[in-house]
Amino acid sequence: MATCYHQSAFKLISSAFPPSNFHKPNHSIYVSQPLRCNLSLPSKTLVTEPEPVFTSVKSFAPATVANLGPGFDFLGCAVDGIGDFVTLRVDPQVRPGEISISDIDGVGNSAKKLSKNPNWNCAGIAAIAVMKMLNIRSVGLSLSLHKGLPLGSGLGSSAASAAAAAVAVNEIFGSHLSVSDLVLAGLESESKVSGYHADNVAPAIMGGFVLIRSYDPLELIQLKFPNEKDLFFVLVNPEFEAPTKKMRAALPTEITMSQHVWNSSQAGALVASVLQGDLKGLGVALSSDKIVEPTRAPLIPGMEAVKKAAIEAGAFGCTISGAGPTAVAITDDEGKGREIGDRMVDAFMKEGNLKASPMVKRLDRVGARLVSGIPR
Amino acid sequence: MATCYHQSAFKLISSAFPPSNFHKPNHSIYVSQPLRCNLSLPSKTLVTEPEPVFTSVKSFAPATVANLGPGFDFLGCAVDGIGDFVTLRVDPQVRPGEISISDIDGVGNSAKKLSKNPNWNCAGIAAIAVMKMLNIRSVGLSLSLHKGLPLGSGLGSSAASAAAAAVAVNEIFGSHLSVSDLVLAGLESESKVSGYHADNVAPAIMGGFVLIRSYDPLELIQLKFPNEKDLFFVLVNPEFEAPTKKMRAALPTEITMSQHVWNSSQAGALVASVLQGDLKGLGVALSSDKIVEPTRAPLIPGMEAVKKAAIEAGAFGCTISGAGPTAVAITDDEGKGREIGDRMVDAFMKEGNLKASPMVKRLDRVGARLVSGIPR
Repeated sequence: MATCYHQSAFKLISSAFPPSNFHKPNHSIYVSQPLRCNLSLPSKTLVTEPEPVFTSVKSFAPATVANLGPGFDFLGCAVDGIGDFVTLRVDPQVRPGEISISDIDGVGNSAKKLSKNPNWNCAGIAAIAVMKMLNIRSVGLSLSLHKGLPLGSGLGSSAASAAAAAVAVNEIFGSHLSVSDLVLAGLESESKVSGYHADNVAPAIMGGFVLIRSYDPLELIQLKFPNEKDLFFVLVNPEFEAPTKKMRAALPTEITMSQHVWNSSQAGALVASVLQGDLKGLGVALSSDKIVEPTRAPLIPGMEAVKKAAIEAGAFGCTISGAGPTAVAITDDEGKGREIGDRMVDAFMKEGNLKASPMVKRLDRVGARLVSGIPR
Repeated sequence: MATCYHQSAFKLISSAFPPSNFHKPNHSIYVSQPLRCNLSLPSKTLVTEPEPVFTSVKSFAPATVANLGPGFDFLGCAVDGIGDFVTLRVDPQVRPGEISISDIDGVGNSAKKLSKNPNWNCAGIAAIAVMKMLNIRSVGLSLSLHKGLPLGSGLGSSAASAAAAAVAVNEIFGSHLSVSDLVLAGLESESKVSGYHADNVAPAIMGGFVLIRSYDPLELIQLKFPNEKDLFFVLVNPEFEAPTKKMRAALPTEITMSQHVWNSSQAGALVASVLQGDLKGLGVALSSDKIVEPTRAPLIPGMEAVKKAAIEAGAFGCTISGAGPTAVAITDDEGKGREIGDRMVDAFMKEGNLKASPMVKRLDRVGARLVSGIPR
């Protein structure tokens, strides 16, 4: 079936990105091209409704670390090997043009806490947004969500669900949307669930490091960390609830010029370190935030000691992942990462009286992708 | 004569930079190595006093654009083909270990305004600092300064004099100091003359784009703009006095979190654009400052119209150079740069009733250097 793009607000103004990140999973060659698109969501972007090319698909989207050090609200990156899965199928039982959430399972108490009403579920909201973009009116879908990420951990749990769902819907209909469309769909979900910020959902979809340059229009810059270098994240998640809203409320509303100059220069240094593959510089930048981390760290018992322990154990840098409570440190060696993680766990227990579990994960360079599909 | 380094605060902690930027003028291979050094100036860094290897030298240091858009106080770059010259000679008439300023000439009324007392002259202060670092006690020097840059123009006039002097003294004694030492010497001069900021003097010495990561210890990151790409600065200097101190007083002391996030993300985007050679992105970032430019532009008659005229004429971006009053725009073509400059000059006259003169100059990738020398 032939499909063609309607001239819409979603049209990519300046991007060399391919329309799908499944067929060309490595975006690295498109690095210097920012993505630009408007944020208002029209009801149609495709003039002709596409037909499904799969009867079912399974997609994956990785965990993400947002608010990267001095990059509060505009710098995030993706973490390989941990994330959410979405299984999506064409379902004649579902009213055409609609989506139903059949099942939610996974780690912790995610399944119990999440709504199966697609209008109140991160995956559902993003899936509906993509269906609208594709102008789906004739096919009903059924979605099953497997949470690999705990809620409220600071690892981009809602963004991973949204990203996996957005990619699944796009792929089942033949992958007509651009990466920026998918980010917009994910952002619609994020804005309803955890706040209007794209520094989780953009790297969850695009992989690697992403800088959010602006929101209106949405402009994203992918920052390529050199392929030949290894980067491991040590993620230590304590048994402690630190809701995003509470952490946001702790932010200062006014900051001084000297704080601003310091944090801005560190953000610039962080971007340079990523692009130049300077892990030591990246670590220093990650640890350097003097605006957000100092107000949030005291709200997470033991966090300051955890950071200190990570650095003493050889991490290049350490900060709070997203809005916490997970602490994230970086290193260039997996074994060293496990040692660093153990020291961080000890510090959470000793100084914060919190049990915590460590993980060591590589940088994800791919982003949300199709895992499997059954062709029609 | 053998010389050796004393273990001093000037010791380069982490740098692959060569000790001289004359013998290896292209620093590009050292790009990702930040320079780190302490700021306190000890009286000696060399245990053994070096002997002069030239009887006289002539050095040049380029103009610089500091406060690059959202990079207030931490991002600057060097501009080729315009700057200050220092001629330095071994002078038996000058008391050993001291320096005398014999002559100052050049554009505008620079010569009349500048002191010949080396303790009150940008070039003199930097030269003395380098002599102290080299532990010069047996040789007297005589310095002649040729100003190619007008004072108070926002083009790094004081930094160019300091950089040229620092390099001249270092070279006449055989180039024993590192780039970071020279920046420290220049910074000592800048702090006495125009404020404690290195975003002019670091690029004046190092060339290209430089990010000041921290001051204590001083850490500098050189950002390599790709060699294969052209970058031209359109510099339009109006006949208007905008003293640095007055412009500094106009700065806001407190800023909002949203302003901070915006400017920081633009600073990150600027760094990415430089490293990725994305001129369009660099221009957008240059134009994006919402903190400093909005308070300073109204103090320069016609500046807002000049910026608009530059963009309309095809410039990728435009902002105030340093603390002004010079306006700087960027383009990838010299001819187009001249057209843009003419439109900016027109706008200064029409909206600000100010005469202005335009220049189109390439990015300087070398920094301060020896122009000639007469060996002993």
